[in-house]
Amino acid sequence: MEIRSYLKKQKEFIERYIEKFLPSGIPKELFDAMAYSVNAGGKRLRPILVIESAKAVNPKVDIDSFIDIAVSVEFLHTYSLIHDDLPAMDNDDLRRGKPTCHKVFGEAIAILAGDGLQSYTFELISSNKNLSAEKLVKIINSVAHGTGVFGMVGGQAGDILYEKENKFNDLEFIHKHKTAKFIQSCCYIGGLIGDGTEEQLNALKNYGLYIGLAFQIQDDILDEIGDEKKLGKKTRKDKEKNKLTYPKVFGLEKSKKLANEYIQKALDEIKILEAPEILSKLAKFIIDREV
Amino acid sequence: MEIRSYLKKQKEFIERYIEKFLPSGIPKELFDAMAYSVNAGGKRLRPILVIESAKAVNPKVDIDSFIDIAVSVEFLHTYSLIHDDLPAMDNDDLRRGKPTCHKVFGEAIAILAGDGLQSYTFELISSNKNLSAEKLVKIINSVAHGTGVFGMVGGQAGDILYEKENKFNDLEFIHKHKTAKFIQSCCYIGGLIGDGTEEQLNALKNYGLYIGLAFQIQDDILDEIGDEKKLGKKTRKDKEKNKLTYPKVFGLEKSKKLANEYIQKALDEIKILEAPEILSKLAKFIIDREV
Repeated sequence: MEIRSYLKKQKEFIERYIEKFLPSGIPKELFDAMAYSVNAGGKRLRPILVIESAKAVNPKVDIDSFIDIAVSVEFLHTYSLIHDDLPAMDNDDLRRGKPTCHKVFGEAIAILAGDGLQSYTFELISSNKNLSAEKLVKIINSVAHGTGVFGMVGGQAGDILYEKENKFNDLEFIHKHKTAKFIQSCCYIGGLIGDGTEEQLNALKNYGLYIGLAFQIQDDILDEIGDEKKLGKKTRKDKEKNKLTYPKVFGLEKSKKLANEYIQKALDEIKILEAPEILSKLAKFIIDREV
Repeated sequence: MEIRSYLKKQKEFIERYIEKFLPSGIPKELFDAMAYSVNAGGKRLRPILVIESAKAVNPKVDIDSFIDIAVSVEFLHTYSLIHDDLPAMDNDDLRRGKPTCHKVFGEAIAILAGDGLQSYTFELISSNKNLSAEKLVKIINSVAHGTGVFGMVGGQAGDILYEKENKFNDLEFIHKHKTAKFIQSCCYIGGLIGDGTEEQLNALKNYGLYIGLAFQIQDDILDEIGDEKKLGKKTRKDKEKNKLTYPKVFGLEKSKKLANEYIQKALDEIKILEAPEILSKLAKFIIDREV
């Protein structure tokens, strides 16, 4: 199967369920702001990783039983984008070709929409009636850890604080924490849902970490040489803001090579899985993508 | 027992555990910002309510087995204060007599410190090894709901959006969602931890809702007539900002009367509990307090 058309199909599948699980209520502006940002598009990579990781250890896994959890990680991802775009943070006006949340709804509602998407993620996961409570607690712990102060939030803080110097240690810290640890968590919880063995879960964790690092390097590369129209956002913003990126520290060619090496490592990890094919193609797609 | 000295003792008890459960790591500024705001003081009312609600249904409950959960609700409360104080929200420079988080650490780190305290709450609850996974999932669901878009976050959005008009419906919506639903959740999860019956849990939910509403009315009253030095923040800010408050809609005397009525209702609810004494005194304290 051609991975691009498969991912497109899966993205549409996820988006049908996003529609279903997006909460509604009052004040209307708050819920509108959440829906606006969640519906702004994107690859839906994280929900897809949850599903494909579950299938990689258990091809017969019942996707209906955890589709709410797969969707919820996209809500968490969207919260992080809304907050990252705020004037006090990266101050971005455009995301996926559309005005950012605070541009449309104002800063206060954007902050609250992000806060609300985070809490709603945990509300949604803990409302699942199909998986065992033991699994749900592990999923919540992994997701909270991967997106929290020891993961995404810590990485974003590093991204803001460590902008000035060309230190590789800082760069690695930022990429690992800001992006890779959450992606790692998506792969791990998928494996957990599919009843993977300890060895399989470790392989998925390593796979997630490696593709997460490669994903962020590719993001840095696309900021440098990507097509603004395809990306739906301004490029060269990292340079403008003097951000610490792979191309800045290593140059473009070496950055591409490093991303490739991470993908190779990821592919090695998942050989032991029941059905690793889609995860393999997905890993390669990560560094081939233009968006 | 005199309730003020009892609450002081309980506050000190909670604060010893806050010290223990506050995470540390890098970037140091992020963790410092979280600790700064959590350690800024406060009554520690929400953790105390978790503990006292558990004891009210089961006087012999083992507090050590859930002290992490009691502490975690204070982290969640602190996240909401940090975000509420932001320039785009209530724009407050002072909280409990100290400069607010963004004044000391900057807006970006303050936003992330709030985000991080929210995720760390769920990380901490899901790390508890003493309670059953079933209980933990229910606790997470209740806390996420009470502080999320159907609770605190929704109420704060209402507080921002509904400032202009004297509508009682809006006022009631704000108070119930911004303050009461989280306090209700604290009482409910305490009862759940103490293995309360369905009837007892309902009584605790109602008690929590009523004292939460009374608590917010008293907050409105203290903003109008309180002592700035005791409160550690500027008073009359609600008026200045044209906020929708009880004194604004009903006047001071009727507001006091309404708060009193809520406390009476709360007291009626908890009569059926095993040991309601401390919760009774706590309810009365809520409208007697000057801080």
